[in-house]
Amino acid sequence: MTDTPAELLSLRKSIDNIDAAIIHLLAERFRCTQQVGALKARLKLPPADKGREAVQIARLRKLAEDADLDPEFAEKFLAFVIREVIRHHEQARTNADGP
Amino acid sequence: MTDTPAELLSLRKSIDNIDAAIIHLLAERFRCTQQVGALKARLKLPPADKGREAVQIARLRKLAEDADLDPEFAEKFLAFVIREVIRHHEQARTNADGP
Repeated sequence: MTDTPAELLSLRKSIDNIDAAIIHLLAERFRCTQQVGALKARLKLPPADKGREAVQIARLRKLAEDADLDPEFAEKFLAFVIREVIRHHEQARTNADGP
Repeated sequence: MTDTPAELLSLRKSIDNIDAAIIHLLAERFRCTQQVGALKARLKLPPADKGREAVQIARLRKLAEDADLDPEFAEKFLAFVIREVIRHHEQARTNADGP
């Protein structure tokens, strides 16, 4: 016998399924940005692109609003992911410059 | 004519599609945690549940490893989302207690 209500267990099952889906999408996203990083390193493009980021932010805020997700959270989420991507790109650039 | 290479534009299109999918999954996740918050407020359960979080972290780290995603990043991502959820739950609890 458990002291966790059945309704809570059911919601947690949905949350776990959604998290698994998000983790796999993030894995695929980093596969893409890894290719972007390699391409930018090869073409000597800067790791960050402020113009592209502004377009991404505006787009995701709009998508979030339409889905009843707090647009501020969507923007914070993108910033969180981009920080990680920039870190990867800088590493790729360092590796490409190499000793 | 654009100065952005076609290969980069193509990768960005994939990233944009993945981001749209993640935003919609996050919206659905917060719909679930909103219900969890209301349930916890009704049953006077505490907003945070460290035991549950430990299980979630271990599970997502394992899923991340299997998908070649940095498990550290997966854990940071979950912590980032849970911080937002706890904030929502505390708000729900305050609203339930009322003035």
